[in-house]
Amino acid sequence: MINKLITKIQKTNAPIVVGLDPMMKFVPEYIKQAAFAEYGETLEGAAEAIWQYNKGIVDAIYDLVPAVKPQIAMYEQFGIPGLVAFKKTVDYCKEKDLVVIGDVKRGDIGSTSEAYAVGHLGKVQVGSKMFAGFDEDFATVNPYLGSDGIKPFTKVCLEEKKGIFVLVKTSNPSSGEFQDRLIDGKPLYEHMGEKVAAWGAECMPESGNYSYVGAVVGATYPEQGKILSKVMPNTFILVPGYGAAGGEGADLAHFFNEDGLGAIINSSRGIIAAYQQEAYASYGEKNYADASRAAVIAMREDIASALQNR
Amino acid sequence: MINKLITKIQKTNAPIVVGLDPMMKFVPEYIKQAAFAEYGETLEGAAEAIWQYNKGIVDAIYDLVPAVKPQIAMYEQFGIPGLVAFKKTVDYCKEKDLVVIGDVKRGDIGSTSEAYAVGHLGKVQVGSKMFAGFDEDFATVNPYLGSDGIKPFTKVCLEEKKGIFVLVKTSNPSSGEFQDRLIDGKPLYEHMGEKVAAWGAECMPESGNYSYVGAVVGATYPEQGKILSKVMPNTFILVPGYGAAGGEGADLAHFFNEDGLGAIINSSRGIIAAYQQEAYASYGEKNYADASRAAVIAMREDIASALQNR
Repeated sequence: MINKLITKIQKTNAPIVVGLDPMMKFVPEYIKQAAFAEYGETLEGAAEAIWQYNKGIVDAIYDLVPAVKPQIAMYEQFGIPGLVAFKKTVDYCKEKDLVVIGDVKRGDIGSTSEAYAVGHLGKVQVGSKMFAGFDEDFATVNPYLGSDGIKPFTKVCLEEKKGIFVLVKTSNPSSGEFQDRLIDGKPLYEHMGEKVAAWGAECMPESGNYSYVGAVVGATYPEQGKILSKVMPNTFILVPGYGAAGGEGADLAHFFNEDGLGAIINSSRGIIAAYQQEAYASYGEKNYADASRAAVIAMREDIASALQNR
Repeated sequence: MINKLITKIQKTNAPIVVGLDPMMKFVPEYIKQAAFAEYGETLEGAAEAIWQYNKGIVDAIYDLVPAVKPQIAMYEQFGIPGLVAFKKTVDYCKEKDLVVIGDVKRGDIGSTSEAYAVGHLGKVQVGSKMFAGFDEDFATVNPYLGSDGIKPFTKVCLEEKKGIFVLVKTSNPSSGEFQDRLIDGKPLYEHMGEKVAAWGAECMPESGNYSYVGAVVGATYPEQGKILSKVMPNTFILVPGYGAAGGEGADLAHFFNEDGLGAIINSSRGIIAAYQQEAYASYGEKNYADASRAAVIAMREDIASALQNR
């Protein structure tokens, strides 16, 4: 799946993943009204609204980008109906041949981590049959519990040729509280990067330079990104925090390797709620998906020029 | 909710939480057969089997213990039907007046962490109405992302008078890979403990000594537990790793404060799959729930004697 992601990045010339993180305040009124007319102001109504909103965006951008990253929390907040909308979104994006990165940030130990890995990337046994629960292509994973939490995921990745992105240095302001603390003279995130490289070394595809074990490093920390892409040369980096979250195009060059690969930049509200920004306001809420398409094209150009000027 | 937990611990004389972590290999054959006869070998069939299995255990133990801890991964592996079984289990345990600790180990930043907090502990707005998605009483939270990840949870805890347990020192063999690393001469878990105490200080109930912010510290690390219960004197500690996972009664005394409170010990397979152990094999699979009841009583006595002999 890492090689599919790379092929699609090269084909679209867009190392971009669109974060499908639907918040109700992003969803155009007409979509909400139609959903509430059908299901009432209920969890089912909210789930229908975010699903229809997502579908509009995916239809408008699927030919431009290699991947999407639905943030499961935004669905989980609406309980079971929300998670049904998550699953519908994953399935629909796969139909459109998009690579789906489930931003689930799961992480536990032993049989519990195995259950998460099976549920999101693999297949679970029921009697004599096997079923995929959510069936994303990649999942994000929290590594605080150490190798016991990661190994069950890498096992499933090898079986299914899928992948994970391990949190290394997150994009938020307080990420340094623990991640930047020095251990033997090196920040924790660097130790984490070394571990990610080691886990990845045991998890290489049959061909290609990048392992099934990726890393998350925030766009808001370009200097750390520079160090980490050297510590983890065979690790694809998922970079959140572009645009609305503070990072800028020029900051991103550091995350890429000499081959122009090695990173994929996420934008969520900057794309999906583009119509609510001044720059794209002229589209109006009826054309919210066209505004998203225009925002993807602008982002692609911003990244291309950052890579050219490095 | 922390005060309800304490009152129930005192009433039952059992600082015990039963981990409802159903694996298919624990579920008696006759329950699986009945579920598969109704729903086939499907995700729905698996979900029905774990729900019926859970219900039997809860009916047998609800008067003996203050709380249960369903591990969501074990449900999530069965996709949407599995999560429906999780929700049914949470609701049923609450009907039985059990305190429900959702072992979800969620953790993200900003609006995303807020969505998890709202989904598991609070209420989400849909138009003019509010709905609870999963509605557990407590949730476990992963702190690798720092305060940005925790604060949205504590906000909801204050509003709803609910609580969280933050991972500090986990019970697994590799938990030391990061958690034990020394930072300024102190292991990371101790820094984490200090943070938990600080977050908790801003999150005290109107009465009582224990904050809404608890901690997870594994029974397998009694010496660390001793230190941490001093670092976090107003923090309730959720202690996994008892019994099947390696910890023993005598190790547990360290986790409790002078008042005999401050900790609640989890056992999962040791209780729910008791009938598969030699000690309880005579119950047979038809009486699996009675075996669980006997295992709870034995555990209660083991802990009481550990507390008496300290």
